[in-house]
Amino acid sequence: MTVLVFLDPAYANGRVVDASKPALLATDQGVTRGDGIFESMLAVDGTPRKLTAHLDRLAVSAEMMDLAIPPAPVWERAIATAIAEHPPAGELVVKLLATRGVEGSGSPTAWVQASLPGPVGREQRESGIDVLLLDRGYDSSVAERAPWLLLGAKTLSYAVNMAALRYARKHGADDVIFTSSNGRVLEGPTSTVLIATVRDGVRTLTTPLLESGILPGTSQGALFKTAAEAGWQLGYGPLVPQDLFEADAVWLVSSIRLMAPVRSIDGRQIPVSHELTEELTALLVKGSRE
Amino acid sequence: MTVLVFLDPAYANGRVVDASKPALLATDQGVTRGDGIFESMLAVDGTPRKLTAHLDRLAVSAEMMDLAIPPAPVWERAIATAIAEHPPAGELVVKLLATRGVEGSGSPTAWVQASLPGPVGREQRESGIDVLLLDRGYDSSVAERAPWLLLGAKTLSYAVNMAALRYARKHGADDVIFTSSNGRVLEGPTSTVLIATVRDGVRTLTTPLLESGILPGTSQGALFKTAAEAGWQLGYGPLVPQDLFEADAVWLVSSIRLMAPVRSIDGRQIPVSHELTEELTALLVKGSRE
Repeated sequence: MTVLVFLDPAYANGRVVDASKPALLATDQGVTRGDGIFESMLAVDGTPRKLTAHLDRLAVSAEMMDLAIPPAPVWERAIATAIAEHPPAGELVVKLLATRGVEGSGSPTAWVQASLPGPVGREQRESGIDVLLLDRGYDSSVAERAPWLLLGAKTLSYAVNMAALRYARKHGADDVIFTSSNGRVLEGPTSTVLIATVRDGVRTLTTPLLESGILPGTSQGALFKTAAEAGWQLGYGPLVPQDLFEADAVWLVSSIRLMAPVRSIDGRQIPVSHELTEELTALLVKGSRE
Repeated sequence: MTVLVFLDPAYANGRVVDASKPALLATDQGVTRGDGIFESMLAVDGTPRKLTAHLDRLAVSAEMMDLAIPPAPVWERAIATAIAEHPPAGELVVKLLATRGVEGSGSPTAWVQASLPGPVGREQRESGIDVLLLDRGYDSSVAERAPWLLLGAKTLSYAVNMAALRYARKHGADDVIFTSSNGRVLEGPTSTVLIATVRDGVRTLTTPLLESGILPGTSQGALFKTAAEAGWQLGYGPLVPQDLFEADAVWLVSSIRLMAPVRSIDGRQIPVSHELTEELTALLVKGSRE
């Protein structure tokens, strides 16, 4: 089942609505223009993971979009309501969404959705994933000079991300790693790229440079904190595809699927380390508790 | 008022719904992922202009998005219903929208919306517009090598287009002309660029090269037909910003606002020709009747 809780000034803890019935005006700019923002987080045994990181990133997205959204405590109460209204579950996907509302209203539409995760993410954590490198079309320096491109905001305009995933599936792969037009590794359509290298006993985790116009990964952020404490060196790109092929392991990291080990890139096998996946997943889970 | 007509197999002419009440599921991928397509057309005295061109482009967008939408006659009947349900008006904006529907349903959500045009477009037709050149981030050759970027599809993921317009307004302008990262003129966020040059008595209308990853303009297409009959030479880019500054007139052309004369670019005045605007608007209107 899906639980929906709308943020509504008249309801301190949010307004619960029937998810099987229409809840949005067809003129909402969230649908007519993909004009809004979102976050997806995992709740484990009723407790959201990385709550502050997700609310902080939602606020950054809102700021980049000139979108006035309710403050964090309002979201927190609606999240609590959504989780409480859902039948108890080990894992729940909790989505936060905010749109620009109906044109001219000046009032955003905001809601929380709680539902069970699909089976695919869990399978992919175990089995690993085959990915394609696809050109994102942007060069890695555009984000800073062109704020209107909203790179680094998590907007509802995800049609290209979804099209890239469809393209990958049509071509026998599971997922995508976007590259910039100048050949840098960027991110997955719904995940952050992470590589591990072990050289002369030094263990290093590296993720692409944030300034290249990618979304700051909340999971990568949580993992880096606990991994540093566990003795890992941390690195921030720039990365090029050759770095992926030369790594000891590569993952796509995200809040719901967690660490998905990459087993091939463009049809070429790369090393998969179950030990590293297990160790880093434990560190990620540890870093995700607040 | 806004009239909404949903395409529904149980209703041959579409299902009319109350636009003031929620009509969409909050889990529709149109809103959660901006995963859908649209068209906006003008109906004059109850007759949609360029109906076939809009339905054709909607079908192309659907094809690029792997989206199975109802066939043209179903749209046509719903459009007729929407116009009939609206109080008679000289001009009506008729929007066609189709989303991927709820995840896993395999069934798109599709509807037609009819409403009065806002006052701004009409004002801008008269007064002209100030525009900024903004980098779209893509180079002009990416569309052909990266179909997953959906360039040339009119998707609901318009957050960047809307952000570019907000950026322009914050900086004292009315609209935007996007350029490619390699310096070519592309298109407006919701319009096509058109320039007129008169050299040694030869009158030429030029629009950017379609292969540069822009949306094929239905208005530009309609105008080019009748303009050719009226003795205009037709040209297709590539265009660079210098071509805009050297033109005898520049317009942003679109279905609702029609020909909006550009009076300045990046704060620099350019020539405006009321005579050419009048002549070409008449040719556009003529070409838009079918």
